[in-house]
Amino acid sequence: MALKYYHAEPLANSLKSMVPLKEKGLAYDSIYVDLHKFEQHSDWFVAINPEGQVPVLDHDGVIITHTTVINEYLEDAFPDAQPESGPLRPRDPVGAARMRYWNKFVDEHVMNHVSMHGWHRMIRVIAGGIEDGTFEELMERIPLPDQRKKWATARSGFSEADLANATAKIEYAVDKVERQLGESEWLAGDSYTLADINFYSHCGMMVERMFPEMDIAGRCPRLIAWRDRVTARPAVAEALKAEDRTMPGLRTWSGHVR
Amino acid sequence: MALKYYHAEPLANSLKSMVPLKEKGLAYDSIYVDLHKFEQHSDWFVAINPEGQVPVLDHDGVIITHTTVINEYLEDAFPDAQPESGPLRPRDPVGAARMRYWNKFVDEHVMNHVSMHGWHRMIRVIAGGIEDGTFEELMERIPLPDQRKKWATARSGFSEADLANATAKIEYAVDKVERQLGESEWLAGDSYTLADINFYSHCGMMVERMFPEMDIAGRCPRLIAWRDRVTARPAVAEALKAEDRTMPGLRTWSGHVR
Repeated sequence: MALKYYHAEPLANSLKSMVPLKEKGLAYDSIYVDLHKFEQHSDWFVAINPEGQVPVLDHDGVIITHTTVINEYLEDAFPDAQPESGPLRPRDPVGAARMRYWNKFVDEHVMNHVSMHGWHRMIRVIAGGIEDGTFEELMERIPLPDQRKKWATARSGFSEADLANATAKIEYAVDKVERQLGESEWLAGDSYTLADINFYSHCGMMVERMFPEMDIAGRCPRLIAWRDRVTARPAVAEALKAEDRTMPGLRTWSGHVR
Repeated sequence: MALKYYHAEPLANSLKSMVPLKEKGLAYDSIYVDLHKFEQHSDWFVAINPEGQVPVLDHDGVIITHTTVINEYLEDAFPDAQPESGPLRPRDPVGAARMRYWNKFVDEHVMNHVSMHGWHRMIRVIAGGIEDGTFEELMERIPLPDQRKKWATARSGFSEADLANATAKIEYAVDKVERQLGESEWLAGDSYTLADINFYSHCGMMVERMFPEMDIAGRCPRLIAWRDRVTARPAVAEALKAEDRTMPGLRTWSGHVR
């Protein structure tokens, strides 16, 4: 049995499936894909994932993509490998439904909005520094039309209206999470699940740093305490130590750059 | 054990969780929610689903919302109630991952785009016919900010750019499905699963009728054959007979109105 995990820096999507691998104590080959060199659109990588996106799980040659799908797959394929805190996907149907409700919320109403601000700050700098001809060439290598559009938009900068809308969605999300954490210790109930890993990776870990004007500590004290509980988990701490080749000046998600 | 299913007309979301109930042969109370009367935003319904959206599954008092979550819940709660064609969620981890890959694609890249055209054609007529004061009052009763925005936009009509973008996404989707059906009989592999039910409910069943200019029959012959196989399933045929109170002149998804 061999697992390979193709990933970039330990944040957002790449972190989201790395944490379950570590929480479950599964041995895997870590393969770093350098987004700064557009390796995700290179021939060798597109041969593995035709959509040209990280992360990817390779399980004995079977390719699984999309983090929510990967994380459910790990539960199906390795049901007994679980942290001491309990299964990452609750075994009772209602608990699993609660977890999936939150996964869906993060996937559809949180991820892209934090991502837009991250792209706006970082990729604008990277994409803007590429010469016209080279940029067109790079664009042509992107398999998904949506991703191509996102790159083109990031290069010129997202509109103020789009950024404001993304900010409003993030504010809605942190308030919703704060309310939920008043009712249960973790997002989907009494135990730490894939839902917590999802919100943490895409928003919880970086929201205070990325959006100081939201005053997250004052507005969402339970979220902050929850975030610190997640960060303190040994599996999460280990994942966060994974390779980060982003120049310090471009660390808009993981560092202090705005 | 008692199941209640709150739903509107048998198409899109409301159809998507009705089909599995019927495929699995589960007895349930059907509760029709009249969207034409905005019942989904009424006090009695918001007390059941605070998000004010159909459909809703009530299983012995436990409320499950969002169709993809409901359908996975039915698999978890009733694993042995399955059609003769096999489990709606494959039992092998790879098959389940393929199914979830397609569910995610439909949920995030198909559903909203077909929906926008349906809303544009139908709800514009309905929303446009409501007087200003009444419209504001109705808007205030909508719990989700996103839904409130969608209604306001539908009333004035979606922009040509948004509609064109939605059309491009639908074309991308039907071509992707057509390619897949060249490789496997059903979307997620050799058997009919929740992925087929999802794409059928949100796009496959109505795409040829709603978008004649796409020439679906000529462009996607395998999709048409697949659609007919789904429509011919007794459980689907039964679901399609469910109550439809939409005035014939407003049947933009289910009828021939454009």
